[in-house]
Parts: sequence; C-alpha cells; structure tokens
Amino acid sequence: MPTAIELAEQFQVSLVGDGTLSLMGLAPLERAQASQISFLSNPLYRQQASDSVAGGLIVSQADLDFLQSNPGVHSGQRVYFVAKNPYATFARIAQHFAKTSEPIYPPGVHPSAAIDSSVIIPASCHIGPFVQIGPGAKLGERVILLGNTSVASNSSIGSDTLIYPNVSLYSDTTIGERCIIHSGAVIGADGFGFAPDFSATGGEWVKIPQTGAVVIGDDVEIGASTTIDRGAMSNTIIGNGTKIDNQVQIAHNVVVGNCCVIAGCAAISGSTKIGNFCIIGGAANFAGHLTIADRTTVSGNTSIIRSITEPGQHYTGVYPSMLHSAWEKNAAILRGLDKIRQRLRLLDQSK
Amino acid sequence: MPTAIELAEQFQVSLVGDGTLSLMGLAPLERAQASQISFLSNPLYRQQASDSVAGGLIVSQADLDFLQSNPGVHSGQRVYFVAKNPYATFARIAQHFAKTSEPIYPPGVHPSAAIDSSVIIPASCHIGPFVQIGPGAKLGERVILLGNTSVASNSSIGSDTLIYPNVSLYSDTTIGERCIIHSGAVIGADGFGFAPDFSATGGEWVKIPQTGAVVIGDDVEIGASTTIDRGAMSNTIIGNGTKIDNQVQIAHNVVVGNCCVIAGCAAISGSTKIGNFCIIGGAANFAGHLTIADRTTVSGNTSIIRSITEPGQHYTGVYPSMLHSAWEKNAAILRGLDKIRQRLRLLDQSK
Amino acid sequence: MPTAIELAEQFQVSLVGDGTLSLMGLAPLERAQASQISFLSNPLYRQQASDSVAGGLIVSQADLDFLQSNPGVHSGQRVYFVAKNPYATFARIAQHFAKTSEPIYPPGVHPSAAIDSSVIIPASCHIGPFVQIGPGAKLGERVILLGNTSVASNSSIGSDTLIYPNVSLYSDTTIGERCIIHSGAVIGADGFGFAPDFSATGGEWVKIPQTGAVVIGDDVEIGASTTIDRGAMSNTIIGNGTKIDNQVQIAHNVVVGNCCVIAGCAAISGSTKIGNFCIIGGAANFAGHLTIADRTTVSGNTSIIRSITEPGQHYTGVYPSMLHSAWEKNAAILRGLDKIRQRLRLLDQSK
Repeated sequence: MPTAIELAEQFQVSLVGDGTLSLMGLAPLERAQASQISFLSNPLYRQQASDSVAGGLIVSQADLDFLQSNPGVHSGQRVYFVAKNPYATFARIAQHFAKTSEPIYPPGVHPSAAIDSSVIIPASCHIGPFVQIGPGAKLGERVILLGNTSVASNSSIGSDTLIYPNVSLYSDTTIGERCIIHSGAVIGADGFGFAPDFSATGGEWVKIPQTGAVVIGDDVEIGASTTIDRGAMSNTIIGNGTKIDNQVQIAHNVVVGNCCVIAGCAAISGSTKIGNFCIIGGAANFAGHLTIADRTTVSGNTSIIRSITEPGQHYTGVYPSMLHSAWEKNAAILRGLDKIRQRLRLLDQSK
Repeated sequence: MPTAIELAEQFQVSLVGDGTLSLMGLAPLERAQASQISFLSNPLYRQQASDSVAGGLIVSQADLDFLQSNPGVHSGQRVYFVAKNPYATFARIAQHFAKTSEPIYPPGVHPSAAIDSSVIIPASCHIGPFVQIGPGAKLGERVILLGNTSVASNSSIGSDTLIYPNVSLYSDTTIGERCIIHSGAVIGADGFGFAPDFSATGGEWVKIPQTGAVVIGDDVEIGASTTIDRGAMSNTIIGNGTKIDNQVQIAHNVVVGNCCVIAGCAAISGSTKIGNFCIIGGAANFAGHLTIADRTTVSGNTSIIRSITEPGQHYTGVYPSMLHSAWEKNAAILRGLDKIRQRLRLLDQSK
Repeated sequence: MPTAIELAEQFQVSLVGDGTLSLMGLAPLERAQASQISFLSNPLYRQQASDSVAGGLIVSQADLDFLQSNPGVHSGQRVYFVAKNPYATFARIAQHFAKTSEPIYPPGVHPSAAIDSSVIIPASCHIGPFVQIGPGAKLGERVILLGNTSVASNSSIGSDTLIYPNVSLYSDTTIGERCIIHSGAVIGADGFGFAPDFSATGGEWVKIPQTGAVVIGDDVEIGASTTIDRGAMSNTIIGNGTKIDNQVQIAHNVVVGNCCVIAGCAAISGSTKIGNFCIIGGAANFAGHLTIADRTTVSGNTSIIRSITEPGQHYTGVYPSMLHSAWEKNAAILRGLDKIRQRLRLLDQSK
C-alpha cells in the first residue's frame, strides 16, 4: 500500500495532511472507507465530500478551501491531494491501483493459433487461442491478442495494443500504438457502395470495390461491436487519441480527427469529416459528405444533416418525450404546422 | 403425438371437446391444419378463429362463448383449451412441441477447447469447439457453450444457461441460471469513461479504469450483438427474468430491474436505473444518471432525458414521418416555432 | 495493363480517343493520374472532370459533349468511355481491376476446422481455421468461410458465397448463391417473442419458441454485425439482390423484397414486409406488422409507424438539429403546441 506522500510525488500533486497515511484504492464519495481515496470534481458534491469517510480526497484548491472551512466528522483524519484537474488525477491514480489487479497476459503464442508462416511475432507479444493471422501482417512489441480474433493479410498492429476476443480486422488495416479494441469490433469490412443499374426488365446493384483501407492512430479505444468500414478508393481514418464507444458505425471514407469522443450507437455516414476534439453523444448520427468543425458537441440522438463550419458549437435535435396520449395530440398538431402558420398569416392580415 | 386431454392436464387448462384427438404442433390461425393447435388472444381475430381449420384452439372463456355462438365450418371437429392467459398457454405448449425438434447438445468437452487448468467443468456441461475459458471461471450444471466463445477469468455461469457461438464474456462476469445468450453478445467490456486533460498545447482523454463487473440474474435472455459494459467502480446489474433483444447497448453502472423487456437497438447510458417490469421499445434511448419508475413503457425511437418518477406511465417522443417534400416545409416551420409564438403574442396584445 | 480499346470491348461501351492507351486502375477525379481512369456521373462535377489529369474518363454522351466543348489542359491525351450508366460502368471496371489485387483463398479445409462427419465439403470450397459446421449443413461450390465462423445444423450456403470471419449462422439458415456476409453478422438467432404471464405475486415472460428460420436469396450482401432473426412460426425472408449495411437489425418474420438497399443501423420490427427496390436510410426504423410499398425511400433516422401503400414515395421524419440553446426553447414550445393551437382558436373566435 503506498503512502499519501508517495502518491503525491508520483502524480505531482500537492499534499495537505499526514503523508504517512497508507491508502489502498479508490471508491465513490458515498462508499469510500478510511483507507480509500475519493475525488471531488464538481462543486455540487462539496457537502457529500465533507461528510465522506474517505481517508484521501483529490480536490481543486477552491474545493479544498471550502472543505477546510466546512469540516465534516471525518475531516480530521483525511489527507488532500490538491490538483489542477482532480478528475484526470483521479483517473491516473485509479489506473495505478487497477494495474495491480489486472490480469497478466504472459508473452507467448498459444499452440492453437493459426499464423501465416510469413508473419514474425515479436517474443514480447501474447497471442491467445484460436487467433488467425494472415500473410504479411505485422505486429509491434507487446501486442496482446486475447483469442478468437482474425487479423487478415497485410494488417499492422502497433506496439502495446490490446485486442479483446472475437475481433475481426480485415486486410490492410493499420492500428496504431497503445490502442484498445473491444470484443466484436469489425474493422475494415467493405464500405456500403453500389451503383444502381436497373431497366424495366430487371437489373442489379453493382458492387463498387472497396479498395481503400482503415488507418487508426495511436491511443485510440474502440468499443465492443463497433464497425469501421474500409474506404472505397481512399482510406477511412481515425485520429490519435480518439475514443469510440460500443456499437458505433463509421462508414467508408470517414475521417475522424484527434481526441474526439464518440458515444455508443452513434453513426457517421460515408465521407463525412469530423474535426478534432469533437464530442458526439450516444445514438447521434451524421449524413454523408459533411464537414464538422473542431470542438463541435452533438447531443445524443441528434441527426446532423448539414456541415457545421463554426468550431466549438453545441447542436441538438431531439423530439421531447411526453406521455403517449399527449404525444398523439402533439404529433398530430406538428404534422399540421403549416395550417397553424397559414392561420396566423390570415389573422395578421385581418387585423 | 399427445392427445388433447393429455395436453389439457399437462398445462392445467380446461378442455372442451373430444379429449382423444391427437395434436402434433402449433400454427398461426390462418395456416393451422386439423392436426394443429392455434390460439386466440386478441378478440380482433375472433372471426378468423371461427373460420380456422385448426383442430385445437387455445382461448379465453369469453372468446369461447363467442366462438360457440358463431361456429365456423370446422368448429364441429375442434377442441378448445380454455385458459386464463391463452397467449402464455400457447407459449408453454409451443415450448413443449419445440423441445422434440430442438438440437441436442450432448455433455462433453470438445477436444479443441482451451480451458484453464484451474477450471472444473461439470460432466453435465457441453463445451463446443474453439471455446476458451480463463483461470478461476466457474460453470454450473448443464451449461452449454456452443463454440468460438470466450469466457474470461473469474467469470461465473449459472446452471442450465445456454450460450450461442461467438460470445465474449470479460473477466468477473456473473451470469445467472437458465439464461440464454445469443451470438455476438459482449458482456463486461470496459465502460466508456475518460477524464479530459487538455491544455493549450495538447493533452489526452485519460482512461478511467473500469473496475466494476457485470452481474446478470436468472432467466435473462440477451440478444445477438447486445453489449453490456462492466461498471466503473461498482457493478452493472440486470435483474431476474429480464429479456433483452438484439443490438441493445447497456452502459456502465446501469441497473435494470426484474422482468423488463428491452427491444432491439435500445440504448441505456451510464448509471441510469430502470425499474421493474418496464417495457422499452426498439431504438429507444436513455440519457445517463436517470431513474425510471417501475412499469414504465417507452415507445420505440424515443429519447428519455429526464427521470420518470410516476410508475406505470407510457412515454413517447417520435417525430412523425411524412412525405419528404412536406417534411422540408414542416421542419423549416418547426425551426421557427419561436417566431410563431412571438407573432401570437403580438396578436394577443393587439386585440 | 489493358488498353482502352480492350476495356471498351469488354464492358461494351463506346470509345472516343486513342485505343492503344494502357490504363492501370481507377481513382477519383481529383487524384487520378494519366494512367488511371475516373468517372463523371453527376453534371455538378463537369468542371472538375475537365480539369482532371485522368487518362480515361467514363462519361455519358451529354457530359462528353460538354467536355469536348470545354477542354482542359489534359484533355488532349484523354480517352472517353461513353456509357449509358457511367456509374455502373465505373463499378464494373473497378471490379475488374480490383480482382487482380484481391486475396486468393485456395480450395481446401484448414485442419483445425470442426466439421460434422455428416457434412460433405465440395473440393472447391475454402474452409478457414476454427470454423465449426454442424450436422446436416450443406455447402455449394466455391463457398469461402474465412475462419472463426459457426454454421449450425441443417444450414445451407449457396455456391460462390463468401463469409468473413466471426459470423454466426444458426440452425436451418438458408443463404443463397453469390452472397457476401461480413464479420460479426448473426443470422437466425431467436426472434424476440415472449408472452407476459404475471399475477400480483409474480410471474414471468414466457418464451415463445422461434421455430421458423431465415431464408436469404441470391446476390445478397450482409454488413458487419448485422442481425437477422429467425421467424416465430414462419420464416424471415430477404429477397434476391438486396444489400444490407452494418449493424442493421431485422426482426422475426420480416420479409424484405428484392433489390432493396438498407443502410447502417436501420431496424425493422417483427412481421413488417418491405417491398421491392426500397431504399432505407441509415438508422431508420420500422414498427412491427407494417406493409411498405415497392420503391419506397425512407430517409435516415426516420421512424415509420404506419404502413405505406403508395409505391415510389419518399418519407422523412427527422427533428432538425439546431444550437443547443435554441433547441431548449424550441423543444419547450413544441411540448406546448396544443396551447398555441388553443390560442389561435381563441383569436379566431374573437375576430
């Protein structure tokens, strides 16, 4: 168990209180014990922090000032880690404690893995059972493939990337370093491109070969069952540091910038370009061929059907939910909005 | 083939008609033959039931009264199973007939399975090919893992649970008894939690370790490609008897109560608590940190962004679809609703 | 490298220019080099086509007339392939070039595959590692199963069908000829059908056995992580030539006609019938038990909750997105639409 002063030094934060206190992990404010650390990143929870049993608290200077003026029953025994960004400091300390209980994946290749003879697996990699790796694939150092995953020909996986079971990487996929890819993700499947060729007597949707690839930067996390299609003639690209949640669909030729977060079930249609530092809510979706400015925020379940040129704006478009009986009336009036406008015009004129 | 009286006894319903009639299966009203059973659970279909060729009909007493007063051509040869809940009785009799044609998965472990030496597989279990089971995992009696499935360390699967191919259970996942998990489901992947740590010169989304787990009750069904994330510091929980359809996304720290049904493509954001006996329509979604009362019904494609405190209500929020040309006008007027209100105020004042 | 005249003959289009020119592939207008072919299918891009460096251009006669009247710097060295349907011709020529760089899957069965002894694998098939095939399954000629795929009992896969890794086919699934099924797809999982059986003291959702199957026609493409459920008592059916994108959910007993395209994340609820040649946008969804006429177009993120009887119409229902602050006002007014209508009525009466 590290002491408070050891933690403060390691994570470069100021310490207020008894540096010899030993701390063994993190917990939410309401559940933390005297041997645990909690954090306060939202002033709304100041009172809860004051009342907490937590032996350590990660706080901002402003919140510390409040807490020292408003001590709780347990404040006397408490140490404070004073950070500029308490939430990020919490995350880093939590990573530190989590590492000690994480599963260890020792280097080595499971005998069942089906690896093409052209592929060189660095000795530092962990390749689990029932993994198949096609010709020409390249793996960096300490790559972990946990099992039942398929890495198709000429794919490349950067060092320290972790891939959970049942992932599919199609041919020519490039994954950066320190990425995490969760189970069920499919990267590099064909984009959805077909040319209609119909006459009066028949016809077909003619498949357009998807000859581009997927290129994923460093430090990207990709959620469970997320799908990222390969490009049609050029590549689909995900920038460095972007985090993508579960069941997100990213179509061919999309470009997502750096350090975006894309929440679950969002969908981005073909050739749309998302800027850097964008925050996309769950189940939000984008039409194709749009350009979205940097630092755009899109609320959950919002459809974006035009480009956004001004950076840093927040867009929403959600039909408010209401009691079903009220909605039935509401939707009927909404359908007739043109009649309401027409009536208003008549009233305006008759004045 | 069972006789009518045998079925009536087995399923504890009253029989009206010739108990010696042999019946061989179920079919919809319009397709049922004289050797088959159909059911009537909605009075709208009384005439269709009267006209049906079905040799057996599962009905309520009220519907039986109607049918006896309005006999059809085939009514003379028909037997009636009179049940309080004809639909549930139909389901149970259908299960009985379906069992005879279901595939049988004999006990045993496929030689290709990669099972950690610490794991004891009960002799009654069926473990298919290319299954991997990590250290510390526990299986109940008669568990069926059909193949290409990954069960990570310290997971636990209750007795009589059936898991279809290509499922991923992350570490520490608990599955109850008599559950059914369909292909492509991912249970226990990391919740989507990151702390922003950016300055003018750079920065990153710092991953918050997801140290909670997923706990799934008894008699839960989980659809194909559904994802249920592990909790951040506490657990994600699914209650007993809840049924979840395909491609549902359940985020970290969500708690779903008992006996809910959640239709396809629904999404529940982090830390939201869904009560008992809730019915959630397809593609409905919930913001995070909400509390939803028991017996709430949410229509398909409805976004819930506030807590619901009164139990038993039905909420809807769906933009009505219309011809595209009408929608273009409608959406333009909708965007300008504030102008309509403003005009109305002016008109009110000018009266 | 084929010459222009060879390509023109093979794809049955007229050639204008030097037939001896050798061409080595396709590229977008703005990136094509003198040895590459591009195409013009939208008159909006005529100027870009005129300026292009492309050595070959697939065009309509009308666009050719324009380009010849408005030559660009590189027009003198260019050949034109004049086609009735330049986009479809582009797709077919692109397929021709793509074939030369596609991976080759040689016939044979990987030694790790777990194939039931009752199954006969034609010598022309490619069966990758960790594939399991259950009793009674049938494969046509030249079927390719790339690995980690499960084909359950009594399934049938038509000739020349290609199945990417990590696909799950449940029992009794029928796949036509020349289909492409992408990774993570799940076909034939149980439909979502439960009969409620609750009393004051408890109860359960009683599972309705899903005894129908899935039948998929010829020339169908199914996207990554798409799920198509088996029928309850009859089948779920996908017609010939229909193309389905990623993460689409198709519920039990749905019937999709021929030559439809269904974009990513769309969802079709149980027993709905989609006509032929329908175009369904991404994240669109359909309630259950509807009938949708032929050649219907549905915009992305639109909910269809009533049947559509007139063929060839285009439906939309998307709440327009706006700045979040504007939306907050807008949604509040929208909730109170009945008050606006009420006021209007009062104003009408007070005139």
